[in-house]
Amino acid sequence: MKTYKTDVRVRYAETDGMGVVHHTNYIKYFEVGRTEYLREVGYTYAKLEEQGIWLPMASVYCEYKSPARYDDLLTVHTRVGEFKGATIVMVYEIYKKETGELIAKGETKHPITDNKMKPIRLRNVNPEVYEILRESI
Amino acid sequence: MKTYKTDVRVRYAETDGMGVVHHTNYIKYFEVGRTEYLREVGYTYAKLEEQGIWLPMASVYCEYKSPARYDDLLTVHTRVGEFKGATIVMVYEIYKKETGELIAKGETKHPITDNKMKPIRLRNVNPEVYEILRESI
Amino acid sequence: MKTYKTDVRVRYAETDGMGVVHHTNYIKYFEVGRTEYLREVGYTYAKLEEQGIWLPMASVYCEYKSPARYDDLLTVHTRVGEFKGATIVMVYEIYKKETGELIAKGETKHPITDNKMKPIRLRNVNPEVYEILRESI
Amino acid sequence: MKTYKTDVRVRYAETDGMGVVHHTNYIKYFEVGRTEYLREVGYTYAKLEEQGIWLPMASVYCEYKSPARYDDLLTVHTRVGEFKGATIVMVYEIYKKETGELIAKGETKHPITDNKMKPIRLRNVNPEVYEILRESI
Repeated sequence: MKTYKTDVRVRYAETDGMGVVHHTNYIKYFEVGRTEYLREVGYTYAKLEEQGIWLPMASVYCEYKSPARYDDLLTVHTRVGEFKGATIVMVYEIYKKETGELIAKGETKHPITDNKMKPIRLRNVNPEVYEILRESI
Repeated sequence: MKTYKTDVRVRYAETDGMGVVHHTNYIKYFEVGRTEYLREVGYTYAKLEEQGIWLPMASVYCEYKSPARYDDLLTVHTRVGEFKGATIVMVYEIYKKETGELIAKGETKHPITDNKMKPIRLRNVNPEVYEILRESI
Repeated sequence: MKTYKTDVRVRYAETDGMGVVHHTNYIKYFEVGRTEYLREVGYTYAKLEEQGIWLPMASVYCEYKSPARYDDLLTVHTRVGEFKGATIVMVYEIYKKETGELIAKGETKHPITDNKMKPIRLRNVNPEVYEILRESI
Repeated sequence: MKTYKTDVRVRYAETDGMGVVHHTNYIKYFEVGRTEYLREVGYTYAKLEEQGIWLPMASVYCEYKSPARYDDLLTVHTRVGEFKGATIVMVYEIYKKETGELIAKGETKHPITDNKMKPIRLRNVNPEVYEILRESI
């Protein structure tokens, strides 16, 4: 099971009137984690999209543990939670880099589709990525 | 059990490179639904904040059923799912107004806190809102 | 010279750590104003896009006069500032509805292009919209 | 005249239905550039805020030269354009790192205020930062 780590610096635009990161932005950090995970395992999402392979969202769950603030440096830990060919579950944990404190954690579920959002069999369409993801669990 | 309905028009800024609403924006629509729900039951969240009563996020879950697109008119249905004094669960369904199609659904969980995010007993701090919420379930 | 007015309610997600609307969101309100302007003059931007007619951004200018806050009801005034066939300038003013106070004002400049962002002559491609816009000044 | 450079990777959430970065997000990249500029000259904006020194927005101007896309690596060049004690003008250019192509450029104007947005004389309130900024032009 591979876990990849990416740093994200909280932007001012990402804070809200409570003085903390708005809850939707942690989910954008998940997306950053997912992007960097795929780059690390050897196949960028941009390249997948060029081939007409999409990973739209089926669901997201996020638990907020401790608020992050403007200019905090966070580390997003990303890994594949489940992968059965037709759907993939990605799992995330976000830590405050300086203190190691857990900020948020969650998961996203993605069907694997073509660029019309029709489900495809990744094994047939792109066996290379299929193998990469299968080995990443 | 009261359910309140609010319309939201999809903005261009809310779409992403897939040509559909970015998944984090449905969660912003939940927030709009929550705001309008509170206004409807008789106590705006802005007014709660002025009194130092906050509803930060403990968790969010969202399931994506069918993508919404730029300029779609959506209806957010919002209700209280659970309320036990210390935390409140809000439940949401988003429909495409024209077709009635379910677009997304989910829930958010909120502790009731002061403006330092310390838990408070709403029953003591603001019995009026406590009663309003209790009766809304 | 036609000016169209649209109301926008400030969302919590649109505020930042200063407790006011983040400066980029007024520019999203401009976009809402632009969308509603086109709907009012009789041709939605969604319909233009379907025909492969795009209005990408060449530039934006925004002046911030007084901060808006969560739950404020704002009115966006939108009009065509200039239209010479190849580019269109839209002009905006955002007021706080309750007090009439000017919150922000600005303008956006748009080339008229096809869906590859190549400039087109609107007069030839869609004379109906060309006339509508010309008469709106 | 010091110019500082910061890299920003385009996130999926930052693209829109045209398949390019939504125009408001370049202005968020300006904000990232501003944050990193201040860190580089030796005084983070977070630290300024702790002292009750704010730099709200008076105006923004942005010119869009060439669209950036998902996963593009951009470099934000940031410098002080003007500084007269009461207001500061920051100037930005965003380039595509791989090709050196100019993507967007613009400027933001900021009054220097306390945390109630009342103008202050930086020279009196924080002579250290005053000198740092004066020497950065």
